[in-house]
Amino acid sequence: MTFQDKSRSYQKNPSFTQRTPHDDSITRGICDHCGLINYVNPKIVAGVVAVWEDKILMCRRAIEPRRGFWTLPAGFMEQQETIAEGAAREAFEEAQAKVEIDALIGIYNVARISQVQIFYRAQLASPDIAAGPESEEVALMGWDEIPWKELAFPSVYWALQHYHQTREAAAFAPFSEPEDWTTTPGFEDLARRYSDG
Amino acid sequence: MTFQDKSRSYQKNPSFTQRTPHDDSITRGICDHCGLINYVNPKIVAGVVAVWEDKILMCRRAIEPRRGFWTLPAGFMEQQETIAEGAAREAFEEAQAKVEIDALIGIYNVARISQVQIFYRAQLASPDIAAGPESEEVALMGWDEIPWKELAFPSVYWALQHYHQTREAAAFAPFSEPEDWTTTPGFEDLARRYSDG
Repeated sequence: MTFQDKSRSYQKNPSFTQRTPHDDSITRGICDHCGLINYVNPKIVAGVVAVWEDKILMCRRAIEPRRGFWTLPAGFMEQQETIAEGAAREAFEEAQAKVEIDALIGIYNVARISQVQIFYRAQLASPDIAAGPESEEVALMGWDEIPWKELAFPSVYWALQHYHQTREAAAFAPFSEPEDWTTTPGFEDLARRYSDG
Repeated sequence: MTFQDKSRSYQKNPSFTQRTPHDDSITRGICDHCGLINYVNPKIVAGVVAVWEDKILMCRRAIEPRRGFWTLPAGFMEQQETIAEGAAREAFEEAQAKVEIDALIGIYNVARISQVQIFYRAQLASPDIAAGPESEEVALMGWDEIPWKELAFPSVYWALQHYHQTREAAAFAPFSEPEDWTTTPGFEDLARRYSDG
């Protein structure tokens, strides 16, 4: 549902009821006026492991969730862009970084929050980076400098590890999420919070 | 926007205005009552090239768009499932087929309609298939039986070709969409309609 067409009647007084459309098996929000079905589907998060020489671009989050923790540039893909364009845009928005997208590293289903996170390997055009509005701080980090105990999300750990395993490879099959995300090193506390209910 | 929580005030009389949220650069529909932002993002279509011996499962569409044309089982991914689960569900809904997902064949951006189409290779558990409500007819086709002039979408052509190129490979880097979809063989008429207007 876009609300972009101001001529449409639903724009004036939208009102939706939960019903199962004809020939469907799932309950959807359906407009009481025009019958428009509000399909809600998983969203893509597009991100990069962006590299300058042997250093990786990392950002410290200035926003919730996980404010203050370190992440890779990543964010929701927008309408009418490709995944790679979305990933490059996020690198610019979060770290003012210009990147050239390279190989696909991983496709990580995060089904419990209806996200698909897709990370590419990318080359930085220069080491000139700066914190965008969603970052407190940005840095180029060597492998041994990565703050493994202060990563924002399990997928950041996965993308970094999968990048590292394939950094010499030109082409390879992309990785998936692990069977059980709660075993991701550094996320024991977060996992415990989920298992406690 | 889900409308799943019936206790929320926006459910009673939703009214959205197009504005640019704080710290955003894109105009969104924002609820006049509660400030909820209606983010609209690209959707994932999950599909399979499902194989029994050397034959490929194809479905003739019973619904628009491209009713009467042949397609691979594919459809919009639903909340809280993985891409592979969505692809397997579509194979069952459209062709009553039980499949085991294998390799990732391709990730095809269709940016002009804000879709990402993701196709997996899959093995059929048996040759027992039957048309679901969205299919007029289903069939197991040898490579030479595929109706190349009657395919529903360019991505069906891409997924079939990319499957064929990698059918002996256990692991490989997935394919992307071509630079220019209008050059896809069999879609000359469709391409002309787009370029005319």
